Amino acid sequence: MQLPVFADVVAASTRLEGLAVRTPLLWSPALDEAVGGRVLIKAECLQRTGSFKFRGAYNALSLIPEADRAKGVVAFSSGNHAQGVAEAARLLGMKAIIVMPADAPAIKAAGVKARGAELVTYDRARESREAIAERIRSETGATLIPSFDHFGVIAGQGTCGLEIAQQLEEMGEAADQLVCCVGGGGLIAGINLALTEKAPGIAVCGAEPEGFDDHARSLISGRRESNTRGAGSLQDALLSLAPGELTFAINQPRLKGVGVVSDGEAMQAVAFAWQHLKLVIEPGGACALAAVLSGKIVAKGKTTIVVATGGNVDAALFAKAIGA
Amino acid sequence: MQLPVFADVVAASTRLEGLAVRTPLLWSPALDEAVGGRVLIKAECLQRTGSFKFRGAYNALSLIPEADRAKGVVAFSSGNHAQGVAEAARLLGMKAIIVMPADAPAIKAAGVKARGAELVTYDRARESREAIAERIRSETGATLIPSFDHFGVIAGQGTCGLEIAQQLEEMGEAADQLVCCVGGGGLIAGINLALTEKAPGIAVCGAEPEGFDDHARSLISGRRESNTRGAGSLQDALLSLAPGELTFAINQPRLKGVGVVSDGEAMQAVAFAWQHLKLVIEPGGACALAAVLSGKIVAKGKTTIVVATGGNVDAALFAKAIGA
Repeated sequence: MQLPVFADVVAASTRLEGLAVRTPLLWSPALDEAVGGRVLIKAECLQRTGSFKFRGAYNALSLIPEADRAKGVVAFSSGNHAQGVAEAARLLGMKAIIVMPADAPAIKAAGVKARGAELVTYDRARESREAIAERIRSETGATLIPSFDHFGVIAGQGTCGLEIAQQLEEMGEAADQLVCCVGGGGLIAGINLALTEKAPGIAVCGAEPEGFDDHARSLISGRRESNTRGAGSLQDALLSLAPGELTFAINQPRLKGVGVVSDGEAMQAVAFAWQHLKLVIEPGGACALAAVLSGKIVAKGKTTIVVATGGNVDAALFAKAIGA
Repeated sequence: MQLPVFADVVAASTRLEGLAVRTPLLWSPALDEAVGGRVLIKAECLQRTGSFKFRGAYNALSLIPEADRAKGVVAFSSGNHAQGVAEAARLLGMKAIIVMPADAPAIKAAGVKARGAELVTYDRARESREAIAERIRSETGATLIPSFDHFGVIAGQGTCGLEIAQQLEEMGEAADQLVCCVGGGGLIAGINLALTEKAPGIAVCGAEPEGFDDHARSLISGRRESNTRGAGSLQDALLSLAPGELTFAINQPRLKGVGVVSDGEAMQAVAFAWQHLKLVIEPGGACALAAVLSGKIVAKGKTTIVVATGGNVDAALFAKAIGA
């Protein structure tokens, strides 16, 4: 498989212009005081579809050869990639079939259907989404759009990192480190491609849910380690089985560490974002913020960029997080 | 009383640099589709203290003569101005006493206390906050900081409008109209000062809660009309009795109209912002968004700037708005 490089991120950026939201890099005095450092939030929850996933999905769909477009696309996802693919397909006039776990947040399933995609659900514990997607692919000729381990997806997510570098320059600031949550590692791989080129002084760290710390363990062992389960965390966006082949090839030499975050810490970060940042962040999307607020990644005395990756959370869970 | 002019807004902007957040002007494809036009949200809910009020409060406190600073400040407010004054006083090392209705959102009272200010509560229906504040002022020598009808407050709020003009220029965009909620009219007066100078082509419209449509009626009658009650709306930030003297002098010749919004429409706008914009907006802060979403101010086919003025809402009411 071909690894994307920085030029592919730049090309993706051109494709996404006027379609993806250039999300803000936000400063919050309350957050600075809470951690005793300077923190800037890259608010990808404000992205089209409510998560960064639109970037990679649209870029990947744009790369499908003209001859294959009429056959549509198929994707499996816990919900944010699903919505990104559905939205990209809608904009490009393509048919999309989305394979999604039955226990995915209702708001994510609704977002997929509202965008005109066909939804196929499966049991996360007993069925193989890969097998279901492969059957659909072979029957329809649709192009499979993986949620992270894909040339076009990684390059598209990299536009988030490109914007961060540009925004720091516009603000006349430099950052010591960046923290981003890690599921399969697609976003952080894209960010790494951008920052290695544009801001190599920034140390890039991951954040993972407890029980799904495959990247943390893989960085230590030097090979791609798997998680023992595929469900069972409120941070539903981050439950990938193992690092991707492409993503790990990019991330392994670049990641400086990974903070491992409990669901309780993630929920506290959701509440902090609600009360102080006035942002709606889903538990998985708040993983990096939780790593910083909990001190698992030290932000004291530093300038830290925290990527808030998504905001698609069901009302009941959100109400629970904010103590309503 | 002296009317602030554009130069006072520019001076306020210099005072606020590095202290107020330069809030983003956000684009949301979902919102554009909902109204059939282009809408940009000036997200003042992301401002320091969770509302635009910090701008005016800090500027006003900065204008207090050195000799009077040790005696502190006193302010009455339903909660957002209160937090703005408390935060400004904290930053300037001044003592603050805040007079706040007993039925104000708990999150606002907590925000005042967390910033080290002294809180005095009163019964909104039976007691006069003006009389209480006046008693405190005469006993302590503290400077009264009105929530809207004040030279320094209006000039400070105007920095929001100045940023909007700058951000439009940076984005290479022009807007047809701007919609901003109106309580006493301080923010919209400041915005008017900025836009008259920097972007005179933008039609500025207000938005008010049902039952508190004093500006709507005052624009028609040509004189300052009062509301018949001082409480009884979920849009608690917008329950001023009548337009201010200074604010109305600025707003009367400039406002192109006012949309009047029910609490139900405001709550729907809070829910829309939660689901699609991923912003936490309080009911009063969502009044302008509600005016646009309800069609009371027509945004179809136009480019509209909507000011989302604050995000300080109690968890229970927020949960109700989002249907949890």
